[in-house]
Amino acid sequence: MNKVKIGIIGYGNIGKGVEAAIRQSSDTELVAVFTRRNPESVVLKTPGVKVVEIKDAEKYKNDIDVMILCGGSATDLPEQGPEFAAMFNIVDSFDTHAKIPEYFATVNKAAMAANKTSVISVGWDPGLFSMIRMLSGAILPEGNDYTFWGKGVSQGHSDAIRRVTGVKNAIQYTIPIDDAVESVRNGKNPELSTRQKHLRECFVVAEEGADKAKIEADIKNMPNYFADYDTIVHFVSEDELKSNHSRMPHGGFVFRSGKTGIDTVNNHIIEFSLKLDSNPEFTANVLVAYARAAVRMNREGCHGAKTVFDVPLSYLSAKSHAELIKGLL
Amino acid sequence: MNKVKIGIIGYGNIGKGVEAAIRQSSDTELVAVFTRRNPESVVLKTPGVKVVEIKDAEKYKNDIDVMILCGGSATDLPEQGPEFAAMFNIVDSFDTHAKIPEYFATVNKAAMAANKTSVISVGWDPGLFSMIRMLSGAILPEGNDYTFWGKGVSQGHSDAIRRVTGVKNAIQYTIPIDDAVESVRNGKNPELSTRQKHLRECFVVAEEGADKAKIEADIKNMPNYFADYDTIVHFVSEDELKSNHSRMPHGGFVFRSGKTGIDTVNNHIIEFSLKLDSNPEFTANVLVAYARAAVRMNREGCHGAKTVFDVPLSYLSAKSHAELIKGLL
Repeated sequence: MNKVKIGIIGYGNIGKGVEAAIRQSSDTELVAVFTRRNPESVVLKTPGVKVVEIKDAEKYKNDIDVMILCGGSATDLPEQGPEFAAMFNIVDSFDTHAKIPEYFATVNKAAMAANKTSVISVGWDPGLFSMIRMLSGAILPEGNDYTFWGKGVSQGHSDAIRRVTGVKNAIQYTIPIDDAVESVRNGKNPELSTRQKHLRECFVVAEEGADKAKIEADIKNMPNYFADYDTIVHFVSEDELKSNHSRMPHGGFVFRSGKTGIDTVNNHIIEFSLKLDSNPEFTANVLVAYARAAVRMNREGCHGAKTVFDVPLSYLSAKSHAELIKGLL
Repeated sequence: MNKVKIGIIGYGNIGKGVEAAIRQSSDTELVAVFTRRNPESVVLKTPGVKVVEIKDAEKYKNDIDVMILCGGSATDLPEQGPEFAAMFNIVDSFDTHAKIPEYFATVNKAAMAANKTSVISVGWDPGLFSMIRMLSGAILPEGNDYTFWGKGVSQGHSDAIRRVTGVKNAIQYTIPIDDAVESVRNGKNPELSTRQKHLRECFVVAEEGADKAKIEADIKNMPNYFADYDTIVHFVSEDELKSNHSRMPHGGFVFRSGKTGIDTVNNHIIEFSLKLDSNPEFTANVLVAYARAAVRMNREGCHGAKTVFDVPLSYLSAKSHAELIKGLL
């Protein structure tokens, strides 16, 4: 069997996770990692795999079946997505929800013109959570959706704290509120305000001599990020932050609570949850499964931009259709 | 927009659920119900819809886009599946796990010859639970699967009790054992015996003068059904059985617990669960979503037998692709 030949663009946390994920599957193979850094400064965990300057990626068009784009959604992917979609089958984790339709259109145009296949916005949200929201809503048209995130680190909120005057470093945890989750799980179909769904807990390293009371107030009153939530601020040392808060756990819950029957009296709860020790590694594993699918869809002539809504689940698996039916259906 | 025109074969609990589910969706329409009973004895909840003898179904080939087969897996579907797959696009809930590969092959042959599309074994297990098992295994190749069922009524086990000498009527609940579920949820990757996973609770109406001690022993020692489980037997009156145990709740949990990373030290838990007030109504709602998909796949020239592994999720929804991306991704 020919292995799926994969390239990685960007060797940050997700890129490293993709490298590890490829080693977990016998049908995938890492060909090269492409970086903006000096390739000699990048040391991979996989012996024999090349590190190449990103500007030379085009030379690998015949050696790579699918590129996994591991850059960030703010500045990397809006450029790299369309650029690489015109040369390779790609998979990415573009996660700026509001900009997905525009990003989809741009990538689709580039991929269609090149007869390539791009699966965008893959991961767990957007990604698995989106799939459950879509599937559950199709099954239970009369009902309510609930998504809770956490407990986990929000990079966006951590960054926002770091921009506060007097803050040297910070980590923010998004925490779903147990009572709200339980109320949904028990079919009460509650109306929940922003404050009732999530709590924000911040671990902050202040600069020496900084006004901690002012930092705390500045965080708690920050519009959009914190003002609508109950927020807890802890001041800790840089050492404590590093030793207790440098892992990247995350997770969350998606619920659909809906009614059925002629008199719509019967209630049903669909619940999907993730508890992840490492957000980037889990995201990377999802990306590799969809990389397999992108190559297969491309071979079948299915070109353009795709999302998790468009990919038959069997395409994600290294197993044959007969094995899937026999063992997992 | 043209509505999806649906026919129902068999007007039992699932057939009634399908009728209700069709009314919940603005893009689906019930054309007729087909029955082996005297059509005049069947009263639908939907005004104006015909009840037709099943032998006349073929006359509706041009009026129905998809037939939903609502018969049982033991005797109805093995005959009806291939028969109707040769005339209509069909969806069914064939759930005899061990016989699915054979059933798939038979239906596939009939559907391929007729250029029709058949989506088989749709529901929640097989169905949604299978999808989560497959998806989770593709994402976390190194890990363990766990499926727990219940709390819910098992028709097979209830029937087995009813065959015990001296038993007039009975209902059996399959109950997942909390400690086992918690242990999996907490990432302990336990090895669980049959007895450690589920408990069986039976509500039995004895015939007058029957030997209750013997009935209880006969149930508890029944091979395959009860001998490998801890089983609780309650004797109740027929009235009590009817008033307290005539609903059809069910549900369960699917877990994947797996490791990632270069040193595979990070653990991840994927959990999917259902809590259903009405097993047949929920199954019916899943069937109707896949009926929509069967028609669409057929229009696109995708013929033969399909399973939940083969259907892109967007095909289940009445919403447009743009709406799905904007609202749910």
